[in-house]
Amino acid sequence: MPSVDAAGEFETIRRLLAPLAHPEWGRGLLDDVAVVPSRPGYDLVLTKDSIVEGVHFLAEDPMDTVARKLLRVSLSDLAAKGAEPFGYMLGCFWSKRCGWPEREAFAAGLKHDQAEFDVALLGGDTVNTPGPASFSLTMLGWMPKGRTVGRDGARPGDVILVTGAIGDGYLGLQAARGLLSLEPERIKSLIEHYRSPMPRTAFAEQIRDLATAAIDVSDGLIADLEHVAAASGVALEIDLGILPVSAAAQAWLDGRVDPQDARVQLATGGDDYEIAFTARAGDEADLRRAAERQHLRLTAIGRVVAGTGVTVRWADNIVAVRQPGWTHD
Amino acid sequence: MPSVDAAGEFETIRRLLAPLAHPEWGRGLLDDVAVVPSRPGYDLVLTKDSIVEGVHFLAEDPMDTVARKLLRVSLSDLAAKGAEPFGYMLGCFWSKRCGWPEREAFAAGLKHDQAEFDVALLGGDTVNTPGPASFSLTMLGWMPKGRTVGRDGARPGDVILVTGAIGDGYLGLQAARGLLSLEPERIKSLIEHYRSPMPRTAFAEQIRDLATAAIDVSDGLIADLEHVAAASGVALEIDLGILPVSAAAQAWLDGRVDPQDARVQLATGGDDYEIAFTARAGDEADLRRAAERQHLRLTAIGRVVAGTGVTVRWADNIVAVRQPGWTHD
Repeated sequence: MPSVDAAGEFETIRRLLAPLAHPEWGRGLLDDVAVVPSRPGYDLVLTKDSIVEGVHFLAEDPMDTVARKLLRVSLSDLAAKGAEPFGYMLGCFWSKRCGWPEREAFAAGLKHDQAEFDVALLGGDTVNTPGPASFSLTMLGWMPKGRTVGRDGARPGDVILVTGAIGDGYLGLQAARGLLSLEPERIKSLIEHYRSPMPRTAFAEQIRDLATAAIDVSDGLIADLEHVAAASGVALEIDLGILPVSAAAQAWLDGRVDPQDARVQLATGGDDYEIAFTARAGDEADLRRAAERQHLRLTAIGRVVAGTGVTVRWADNIVAVRQPGWTHD
Repeated sequence: MPSVDAAGEFETIRRLLAPLAHPEWGRGLLDDVAVVPSRPGYDLVLTKDSIVEGVHFLAEDPMDTVARKLLRVSLSDLAAKGAEPFGYMLGCFWSKRCGWPEREAFAAGLKHDQAEFDVALLGGDTVNTPGPASFSLTMLGWMPKGRTVGRDGARPGDVILVTGAIGDGYLGLQAARGLLSLEPERIKSLIEHYRSPMPRTAFAEQIRDLATAAIDVSDGLIADLEHVAAASGVALEIDLGILPVSAAAQAWLDGRVDPQDARVQLATGGDDYEIAFTARAGDEADLRRAAERQHLRLTAIGRVVAGTGVTVRWADNIVAVRQPGWTHD
């Protein structure tokens, strides 16, 4: 170990991060670089996510869940493209409040999810910052050559499907901020979803085989579908009446005076990390069977037609959505 | 373009970053992921660097040089492994002071160096931060399968060589902070080196073919050689009397009362981004000829022997180096 380590960088790498490194490709985090053998017949798929305390996560969020969410958000991006993740490069900007307990908790969160999702740390960089704790992660995965699912393959006649439930990301953030009045069990499950969403990695194979276009729901369902509509040159029609919601979200909906506005909030809130995708109508039954085998909820929420943009319906009316998604300011 | 873009994220991507994207693999920065075809017979080599304003660069540094230095630091890591860079993933944390002019300057710096070093933006993420401007970059390169040069191949009898000059990184930082009194021309060239160091990418091929161990000089020459000694299980002996320095550094040395201490400062200051490496003594002549063809200075500064650690000599004495390198605090 070097004799000077004022910032704790070497010690953080040696004690906390090196044990997480890919046994071969990470080179023990001792060599400035990771070396990954090529996989003939496969493309390398990469995605990057950057998060800042106070903007993308809360100062009260436990550091192990911050680490897990960072991994899961990137895993969700790969799942929505049909890719199989294998490892990641990590940049840590530790703030003054990140002492050893916080760094250890962060590493424990990485360790937990590395095992759950079968990925390994390849390399990275750790620095100190006078600003808020921030992290940047590049996730890598494999995809059979030329088969990465884009946003641009939706065609009129396709059905629009979404995995899981929509709105728990938005409600979870409200819950974590103490802004929701619901039963404690509901609050707990919403906060849990907000802090460690479940990326649909297990469904990536079906996306690869049968989706015509796909995106993970991070900005907000409607905003993300707008990206698909724009890239594909089609219009997407969805019905808020069949928006899949969790039991907790249903309890929240039941207490709203304006059900349409409440559903728009769920469909624009973002942070869901479900996969919204289009598929040929003839493939819907196969997709449903595959989802059932995984005990994964899969809901057809609309249809692709000729035109542009996303049309949102509720109780036979067309809803004007002023703000289709959410951005951090 | 989405209707909501409070943070300017979409606009930054569309206007400033998308024009820098790899024409095919970057997918127009429109698809959350980059897709890179495999290159059979080659390994993928990855390195990550993270920088923070006020820690790794100065608030006064022009944003175009901040971008260029970020790229060059990573290019230097790959060059020292013998790898050929092709693209990068970029995470931008914009601070409040990063308005359009600063973002445009940053993008212009990327564009300049993409052309100079033949690399392209593959993808990334851009967010706003209430803290200091920060950036995290993952550089990717190719290396013929299994031939990445490590830190662990130095053997007794090898010669220790270093490209370029040592100490300009350290003096450049002092110059940028206004702490040096030298002729204006010297100051200018030192600041220029500090702001945009020259990664030795052109010499990567020679490193690949003939280096037994290699590292880029970022922490400080002596600290970096200690990494090589430890990984290789050998001792490295260097002579400060033959430390290669620039004309500006020589002018600075000439004004010092303690020449030994001054040379130790240059050899521990870091931020040089030269390649320090070991090679079989019989290959030194070939390496010299290759360097001469590139008009690249190449200096033999010592020899590998049995033992541990780095021994530093000056005028027939052994110098005790208390602080072999520099870390940001």
